[in-house]
Amino acid sequence: MAYELYYWPTIQGRGEFVRLALEEAGADYIDVARESEGVAVMMRMMEHADHPSFAPPFLKDGETVIGQTAAILLYLGARHGLAPKDPAGGLWTHQIQLTISDLVAEAHDTHHPVGVGLYYEDQKDEALRRAQEFRDDRIPKFLNWLETVLARNPSGPAHLVGRAITYADLSLFQTVEGLSYAFPKATARALKKAPHVAALHDAVAERPRIKAYLASPRRIPFNEEGLFRHYPELDG
Amino acid sequence: MAYELYYWPTIQGRGEFVRLALEEAGADYIDVARESEGVAVMMRMMEHADHPSFAPPFLKDGETVIGQTAAILLYLGARHGLAPKDPAGGLWTHQIQLTISDLVAEAHDTHHPVGVGLYYEDQKDEALRRAQEFRDDRIPKFLNWLETVLARNPSGPAHLVGRAITYADLSLFQTVEGLSYAFPKATARALKKAPHVAALHDAVAERPRIKAYLASPRRIPFNEEGLFRHYPELDG
Repeated sequence: MAYELYYWPTIQGRGEFVRLALEEAGADYIDVARESEGVAVMMRMMEHADHPSFAPPFLKDGETVIGQTAAILLYLGARHGLAPKDPAGGLWTHQIQLTISDLVAEAHDTHHPVGVGLYYEDQKDEALRRAQEFRDDRIPKFLNWLETVLARNPSGPAHLVGRAITYADLSLFQTVEGLSYAFPKATARALKKAPHVAALHDAVAERPRIKAYLASPRRIPFNEEGLFRHYPELDG
Repeated sequence: MAYELYYWPTIQGRGEFVRLALEEAGADYIDVARESEGVAVMMRMMEHADHPSFAPPFLKDGETVIGQTAAILLYLGARHGLAPKDPAGGLWTHQIQLTISDLVAEAHDTHHPVGVGLYYEDQKDEALRRAQEFRDDRIPKFLNWLETVLARNPSGPAHLVGRAITYADLSLFQTVEGLSYAFPKATARALKKAPHVAALHDAVAERPRIKAYLASPRRIPFNEEGLFRHYPELDG
């Protein structure tokens, strides 16, 4: 049976981390909310499920419904060889994913520092202040941490964990894509000091299934409704 | 061998979620940074570990070092019966924890909406704006979600998952404690509409090991350096 992914249909957002894992796995899935009436189905699921998710994305696999991006990836990683089978390696992969999730949340908050209930235009002054710290301190600090993880991988710096692709590698790719879209100048500066991160990003983009996905209409372009938004004034 | 917990020694912070799990489990552990030279040891570990953590807390169990609060709890939950043994129940517990982590991050950001590099006093105007949405919309939304999870538990509303205590229950307790400290008026209002949440919080506080812990010097009092801070102006 095909997986059912539930996520907002017009943005990459957090759902994209799940889409990339499903695509790399070659898994059969339906992106439910992109079908007609799909958003209404998603909202009913959130309201009435035995295990309701606080927010999209969530994934349905038969009778199992899983929410929270990192938990979905933990589940898919074990099922599709996108994480090491040994418990320590699996947990380390998850720890990296959770740290990437923290970076992604901070990226989001640059354009919504006051709250999700207001438009960007209504919190632009606060956004300018928050984005400065994000691009000067936080992007370099997170990318430097990922660089260190790659440099210390006993199997070499081609992957975050072990000698094969994991969902953490895919999430690194998506995060660098997003940061490069939203903060092109700041991210280019930080990537110069994180060559392993830049190389892994580029290598993921060339993986056959990911390359085909990125060129397909299934890949929604970045836009200013999503998680990573390009407001030039926030890039300094 | 005793676990070694690494976390800032003067605040509850995110480390408290790990401390509560260790205490409820009756596990032998050393709160390393609270010993003399402990913070220096922690900083060296962060710098030099094979699996460096981006930030505290992290836990050392023999040769294994695990960072990220939710990942530590996933590990401890499986080892100490603080999560269901079946994979679906374990994942659901983790999903709830990750959602609580999101709430906790938002609580933190009410006093640091511009960034972690500045003092509260330097972002007070922004904090006033952010706290309003947090107390009017976000606290009620998160507590209502937890209330729904409790109400839909097939084993009854005494626990978030199944019929026994999990680390998610402990984290709910800590989150309600923290919110009640930081936003007493807003949290009391929200708890009136979430009676199962309030009851679970009270029940956790009465568990023998938790009760003994809370009365011990191991429990650091809330303060204005931690995650949950009481600034009356932010409580509306």
